Amino acid sequence: VSGSARARLFRQMYPEPGGANGSNWLNRFLVTAILAAIATSILATEPELTNGAPGLFEGLEYFFGVIFLLEYCARLWTAAERPGDAGAWSKRLRYAVTPLAMVDLVVVIVSLSPLLFADATILRALRLFRLITIAKFGRFSRAFREIGEAMAERKYELAVTMALAGFLLLFGATALYLVEGDVQPEKFGSIPRALWWSIITLTTVGYGDVSPVTPLGKFLAAIIALAGIGMVAMPTGIMAAAFSEAMQEWREAHREDEPPDEG
Amino acid sequence: VSGSARARLFRQMYPEPGGANGSNWLNRFLVTAILAAIATSILATEPELTNGAPGLFEGLEYFFGVIFLLEYCARLWTAAERPGDAGAWSKRLRYAVTPLAMVDLVVVIVSLSPLLFADATILRALRLFRLITIAKFGRFSRAFREIGEAMAERKYELAVTMALAGFLLLFGATALYLVEGDVQPEKFGSIPRALWWSIITLTTVGYGDVSPVTPLGKFLAAIIALAGIGMVAMPTGIMAAAFSEAMQEWREAHREDEPPDEG
Amino acid sequence: VSGSARARLFRQMYPEPGGANGSNWLNRFLVTAILAAIATSILATEPELTNGAPGLFEGLEYFFGVIFLLEYCARLWTAAERPGDAGAWSKRLRYAVTPLAMVDLVVVIVSLSPLLFADATILRALRLFRLITIAKFGRFSRAFREIGEAMAERKYELAVTMALAGFLLLFGATALYLVEGDVQPEKFGSIPRALWWSIITLTTVGYGDVSPVTPLGKFLAAIIALAGIGMVAMPTGIMAAAFSEAMQEWREAHREDEPPDEG
Amino acid sequence: VSGSARARLFRQMYPEPGGANGSNWLNRFLVTAILAAIATSILATEPELTNGAPGLFEGLEYFFGVIFLLEYCARLWTAAERPGDAGAWSKRLRYAVTPLAMVDLVVVIVSLSPLLFADATILRALRLFRLITIAKFGRFSRAFREIGEAMAERKYELAVTMALAGFLLLFGATALYLVEGDVQPEKFGSIPRALWWSIITLTTVGYGDVSPVTPLGKFLAAIIALAGIGMVAMPTGIMAAAFSEAMQEWREAHREDEPPDEG
Repeated sequence: VSGSARARLFRQMYPEPGGANGSNWLNRFLVTAILAAIATSILATEPELTNGAPGLFEGLEYFFGVIFLLEYCARLWTAAERPGDAGAWSKRLRYAVTPLAMVDLVVVIVSLSPLLFADATILRALRLFRLITIAKFGRFSRAFREIGEAMAERKYELAVTMALAGFLLLFGATALYLVEGDVQPEKFGSIPRALWWSIITLTTVGYGDVSPVTPLGKFLAAIIALAGIGMVAMPTGIMAAAFSEAMQEWREAHREDEPPDEG
Repeated sequence: VSGSARARLFRQMYPEPGGANGSNWLNRFLVTAILAAIATSILATEPELTNGAPGLFEGLEYFFGVIFLLEYCARLWTAAERPGDAGAWSKRLRYAVTPLAMVDLVVVIVSLSPLLFADATILRALRLFRLITIAKFGRFSRAFREIGEAMAERKYELAVTMALAGFLLLFGATALYLVEGDVQPEKFGSIPRALWWSIITLTTVGYGDVSPVTPLGKFLAAIIALAGIGMVAMPTGIMAAAFSEAMQEWREAHREDEPPDEG
Repeated sequence: VSGSARARLFRQMYPEPGGANGSNWLNRFLVTAILAAIATSILATEPELTNGAPGLFEGLEYFFGVIFLLEYCARLWTAAERPGDAGAWSKRLRYAVTPLAMVDLVVVIVSLSPLLFADATILRALRLFRLITIAKFGRFSRAFREIGEAMAERKYELAVTMALAGFLLLFGATALYLVEGDVQPEKFGSIPRALWWSIITLTTVGYGDVSPVTPLGKFLAAIIALAGIGMVAMPTGIMAAAFSEAMQEWREAHREDEPPDEG
Repeated sequence: VSGSARARLFRQMYPEPGGANGSNWLNRFLVTAILAAIATSILATEPELTNGAPGLFEGLEYFFGVIFLLEYCARLWTAAERPGDAGAWSKRLRYAVTPLAMVDLVVVIVSLSPLLFADATILRALRLFRLITIAKFGRFSRAFREIGEAMAERKYELAVTMALAGFLLLFGATALYLVEGDVQPEKFGSIPRALWWSIITLTTVGYGDVSPVTPLGKFLAAIIALAGIGMVAMPTGIMAAAFSEAMQEWREAHREDEPPDEG
């Protein structure tokens, strides 16, 4: 086996951030394959589709399994190109026990075994994030670090607003439990049941499976809704602001890093 | 036919941006006619109205069809006034094959044919946008360009937040599919079905046609709702911020362009 | 009748903005009376309450009617103190034909007639605003002027976002009308009916009385919800920003106007 | 009894803000005990859990009751260490009549009596806030003071937006009462009933238990929803902005106060 071919493949699989082949054909193909495999897993859980085309989804699953097996083998083979003084097999073993490599292996085994069909969806989504992270390392790793820092900077706000939101959710649930507990025991007969109501109401989802029926319950629910919706939305608002700020900083930093031919 | 009359009509149909006749009587009449034709198309789909006045909506449809036919002919005739060295008929042919002219022609044909009644609504709405664009070209074309630029500047934020929102929607759907799939197979029996639940929940629409019934399902749904609603709202928040920023820049630029008598 | 008593009463009823008696006992009493009369009107529409206490609400209604009659007479009498060279009765006549005075008269007549009980609620709410406006003229009139100016400054944003929101509502309604019209004719059988769905969905109210049932309908509705909710919320977001900005400017201007003993 | 041991316990129970033992083991244990007691109270209201483990929740309740009794006795005993010239028993009596101490006593009595099981939840949540306040006095007292100041600074905005929101809720309720009152007397037959609809609609909760069914009612409800949702969300938006601003100021002030080894 030519060391040069192995090195070229290694550079294709682990492109340098910001480099010319940052999103080369191999990574694009693998991202597409993972997205297609995720879509296949999602659709394969729907009986109306699998009944209509019995062998199709199984076939696609095996097809993607083979692609991911080849990818796994290629990553294992080219692991010898990783920087360091150790021998080729020592480097490969070290690669094989990294969490990312083990997730890859589990996905391959799951895909190629006829069992455990649907449960692979989330694993694949995680792999997708991993590929993006690898392909665009310089970009995204900084983005996530910035988000983490922005969150950490706001930890007191988050703690105070989450405590207030939690208190309000509990207060609403207790109030409705006391007022409507006897009238609708199935829905408000305990505080955990009433918490389902207060969470679904104060997030404004409002399914309507649980709602007060007595005048006093409606009066309390109306007051709690008017006063509480803004409070419960506050932690997510703070997180959104932190996220937005972090993305802006990251974008500005990112622009400076870019090679001039990309700008 | 007097060239002078044709030139005057041309200037009426394609007023210069920011000019004195930027929204002249002809364009106002055509905008009003399109709005009235859209309203007619919308109301004509309602059987209770059409049964009450059988011939009215058909008559109005033909009436507007004739107006739009006259408009189309006028645009074709005055196309000879368009800048360029080509002959009058050559300019008209070139105009006739532009997408805008072809949409106009389709609308006229649809309006004057007794078939395909309701489906013309969206076509007309598109035409309305086109007329506004023509009449106020200088204003709106810059607004849309600014919006496009503001969006492009935020493409990484949009990509990251949309990926996170998509992952969360998929995660919620998979969790509820695993927990509630056996209890409510009609509603959570596959991931695509559960995705309907997670989208309607995390956008806070919450119809209530699909909601968890088991304690574990409700517990997971409550956690997902509290954590995910802010995340799913983030891409639209970023787009709204980009839009708002673009509109502000456009407004400031627009103010400078305006002739002093308009300020 | 002493001119001095009339002048004192006039100053009580129309206190100067920012003055020492800006919210004197008379205005406070009248605001309280109007709020109590509104609450009475609201509660008087509830049969369970009126059946429980048959004469109570009628009595209260007459009681407030007499108070407002006295207020009307006092305003008419003290109208002679208004600035200007005209005679007392001429000033009173001019006051009586102002819109505010005519609303007052209508409320008195409605309150003291045994008919048209509930419909006075909105009229009274309007009167409340009027009293606040009078009592705190210097403060609120500037606030509303600032809001009006901030809105006017954003009229292009509002126009563009409302046009886009309207187009999206219409697009969603037409799409669901085409897909679900045959399956649920009662709910999606015409574009006006489908507009009810698209408005209730894209404002995230989501009653659940109307929702798609076919897979294609659900798919389209999910896409429209994810893409459209942010768009439909944009005009109100712009208005909220304008309002907030106007209030801030007003607050800052207000602080400067305040007598130092209030700061 | 050794005065030194009492003084050490006092310092443990009331740590100085920003000090080294700001969140010592005793306070952490008490916070954990309160959280566990709250969770126990919540779960103890659910019959399916109490039926499954009959004695468990009662036992836990007595267990936490004894812990809180010991805490109460310790606070009473160490109250003698409070600053001031009065005697030990005089200081204890003064402590015992403070609201916080009386809440503590009520919680102990409630926990150790076999009655009134669930109603202690809110009391405990209040105690939790109290403990946090004591343990982190320097931090949180400033945060709440800043929030209070930020709210006070915006009292006019809050008054104007709440008045507008209240007017809109009342207007919507009256409109639907007039239009749908005869068709759905159970739901829109009085303004208080219609107010339930307008609050649940304009907060976008939208349970779906109450919604208009007539074309005119739906038309009005759609207009009211499009125009009113932004208005009703404005007071909470202003409060969120005030809160966010106050938290930012507090964070900046807090950072300066921190001992360097914490930064």
